[in-house]
Amino acid sequence: MAKTPNEVTPFADAEPVAANGLLHRRMFLSGGAFFAGAASLSGLLSAQPASAQMATVPDWRKEPGKSFTPYGVPSKFEEPVQRLVTVRANSYPSPGAGSSRTPLHLLEGIITPSGLHFERSHSGVPDIDPDRHRLLIHGLVRQPLVFDLESLMRYPRVSAIHFIECAGNSGGGWAVQPPVGFVGTMHGLLSCSEWTGVPLHYLLEEAGIDPKAKWILAEGIDASGMSRSVPIEKALGDAMVALFQNGERIRPEQGYPMRLLLPGWEGNMNVKWLHRIKLTEGPTYTKDETSKYTELMPDGKSMQFTFPMEVKSVITRPSEGVNMQGPGFYEISGFAWSGNGKIKRVDISADGGASWAEAALQEPIASRALTRFRLPWQWDGKEVILQSRATDETGAVQPTRAELIGTKGVKNAYHYNGITTWEIRQSGLVKNVWA
Amino acid sequence: MAKTPNEVTPFADAEPVAANGLLHRRMFLSGGAFFAGAASLSGLLSAQPASAQMATVPDWRKEPGKSFTPYGVPSKFEEPVQRLVTVRANSYPSPGAGSSRTPLHLLEGIITPSGLHFERSHSGVPDIDPDRHRLLIHGLVRQPLVFDLESLMRYPRVSAIHFIECAGNSGGGWAVQPPVGFVGTMHGLLSCSEWTGVPLHYLLEEAGIDPKAKWILAEGIDASGMSRSVPIEKALGDAMVALFQNGERIRPEQGYPMRLLLPGWEGNMNVKWLHRIKLTEGPTYTKDETSKYTELMPDGKSMQFTFPMEVKSVITRPSEGVNMQGPGFYEISGFAWSGNGKIKRVDISADGGASWAEAALQEPIASRALTRFRLPWQWDGKEVILQSRATDETGAVQPTRAELIGTKGVKNAYHYNGITTWEIRQSGLVKNVWA
Repeated sequence: MAKTPNEVTPFADAEPVAANGLLHRRMFLSGGAFFAGAASLSGLLSAQPASAQMATVPDWRKEPGKSFTPYGVPSKFEEPVQRLVTVRANSYPSPGAGSSRTPLHLLEGIITPSGLHFERSHSGVPDIDPDRHRLLIHGLVRQPLVFDLESLMRYPRVSAIHFIECAGNSGGGWAVQPPVGFVGTMHGLLSCSEWTGVPLHYLLEEAGIDPKAKWILAEGIDASGMSRSVPIEKALGDAMVALFQNGERIRPEQGYPMRLLLPGWEGNMNVKWLHRIKLTEGPTYTKDETSKYTELMPDGKSMQFTFPMEVKSVITRPSEGVNMQGPGFYEISGFAWSGNGKIKRVDISADGGASWAEAALQEPIASRALTRFRLPWQWDGKEVILQSRATDETGAVQPTRAELIGTKGVKNAYHYNGITTWEIRQSGLVKNVWA
Repeated sequence: MAKTPNEVTPFADAEPVAANGLLHRRMFLSGGAFFAGAASLSGLLSAQPASAQMATVPDWRKEPGKSFTPYGVPSKFEEPVQRLVTVRANSYPSPGAGSSRTPLHLLEGIITPSGLHFERSHSGVPDIDPDRHRLLIHGLVRQPLVFDLESLMRYPRVSAIHFIECAGNSGGGWAVQPPVGFVGTMHGLLSCSEWTGVPLHYLLEEAGIDPKAKWILAEGIDASGMSRSVPIEKALGDAMVALFQNGERIRPEQGYPMRLLLPGWEGNMNVKWLHRIKLTEGPTYTKDETSKYTELMPDGKSMQFTFPMEVKSVITRPSEGVNMQGPGFYEISGFAWSGNGKIKRVDISADGGASWAEAALQEPIASRALTRFRLPWQWDGKEVILQSRATDETGAVQPTRAELIGTKGVKNAYHYNGITTWEIRQSGLVKNVWA
């Protein structure tokens, strides 16, 4: 992988593979030496000859820095990187109901720092004493059981990187005249963590599953009593009772001390502050799966129990608020995800969907996790319509908005997964538009 | 993967595969239904029949919880999960020199939350204004260049999960009478993050590499001027100028606004607050690679430039401070890592190294990253000597302490990678011992 200096050769084949300067992803995949000898790129990427170096010695060079701390926080210069609180707590529609969004356009990689994981709750964030918390498993079981945290800690665990996406994420796309905004504003009810917990099947099997049990009811102990029905196949599959998030115990707003994790399924079903699981013959039809989280179709009927979040992608760089700095080389980057498995490919168009170039996918490419994609790009400074289109391992392809509303109409509020479009203006300004 | 209830069958083959109750890892690998029908496990894992459920309704069920927050923090009940500050800043040996350690025995998975990433610095943590920070590349180049943050943001990026381990981690093992302690106390100069940055080769190639350049000097702009020499092959290989850690901009104590990342190489070389890279014919022999970070051998000579951190593992559960709760089922878990590539296997012994059982490795198994391992275990309540032994993809096997000091003596202070031993007492108490 390492190259000695005299082995470096210019990347000779820099022909665009799609319109408006999209280059081949192998520039990244090959370990990319395409800058070598390409002196013309120098000024374009804004590096300055060393004569321009500051002569002054900064304060932090002159004296020792701060002490070590028990629990670190970001630099004060990063304070603008915050969750976007879009609905204030203790107001409409009910006390404590609302959400905050992850500022995805300011992040990189695939892990969301836990402090910036999106929040969604129906009665605020409870402050639960873990020693007083219990998980009850009852209903169609041989022996109802109650678990405290200490007993759960004895069970085998599993770790996995998974996204959680609110069913209502990107919901503005359903409107007849959709709103526009930053990636975080429009699509920020989406985050990705390394989760660790107890596979749910161990707990259900220990309680003894009655063969009549085909569903479970999962309920949180927050004041709203948020609850959802889940088919038993998912509960016995990759479902877990999550106890850890990105290495440490899960955060209060993510369900401390425990939440249900149903990889790839709509966020609302990943019940936080989990305290009760009841095995049942059929779905319970709770308020949270009848009054909400159903998809209203053009004929006035609703689809219910549409669980997996569909294949989707969004370019984060460039994007609204992440503007261009003049013509030249750029990396186009963003992430793709699917509730039905791994991402297989992501294509990028710089001419509004007429031609496409396949992006490089960054490892790890995990099932039901965000996958970072990257593509080299020479921007000539002209106006461009930029889009990404994801395909997952089931073969499902992210639709255009026209295709999506052609099927599902404009009355729906959930599961919007249409292509996001950025208009790059000659000034370098990037605007969210609807193609 | 999912099972319907009547397909569940007891795991019939629960014969130990090594002494003192170590079971086969396929119990996890197969999706494990070994609890099903195993009613005898029920009481042992402390789950209680539902009649024992609390009758009182907790406060957090009765009223709405807290509001949403711009940047979240852990639960107040998790305050004991802190970095272990072992040397106070502004004291010996020089102002601001010291470290804090990651409480690894309290964590799960492989990602270290950024707030708990270990700290090591030689003059405290500088508070750098990113707009005033510059990176100079000079020496044996065609054209010296200065990069500000805005110009670096234009370059292609790479993301990867990598550990950073201080060369002095676990250094107590070299002592004639080694100290004992928690995993975090003994081995906590080790953390693992998803890092994103600019591959260094892009920047060096743009400056134009003189064929005479065989090394680089990397220097930080902290008051200590921490600096190290790096062979050009590594600089042109997987080295990056890291800008993001676990999704957000890197933390001040990790080098904000930028650090050198040399995957798998001793932590000290991953120069923080990076402001200067000089291409040179040979190593610079800085104070930080001559007065320190060399390995003193029994013959009085020192080994220098021993860069990769060797293959290593440690069991975190059970471990000192993470005690047993009586006989019965347990999961043994911990992590393994190697600076030379991927972990290939981890073996566990419950009889002081006489017999071994292969552990299950949790995906993702990434090169130069922590890898979580797990093994099912039936503990019969007798005294046990518990050990883990890692093997990496180069075939290197983690040595015993006897093997290690047999080769390198007891005068060394760096690169200790011997096997860690836990003594499980009949009372359930777990103590760190030296086998």
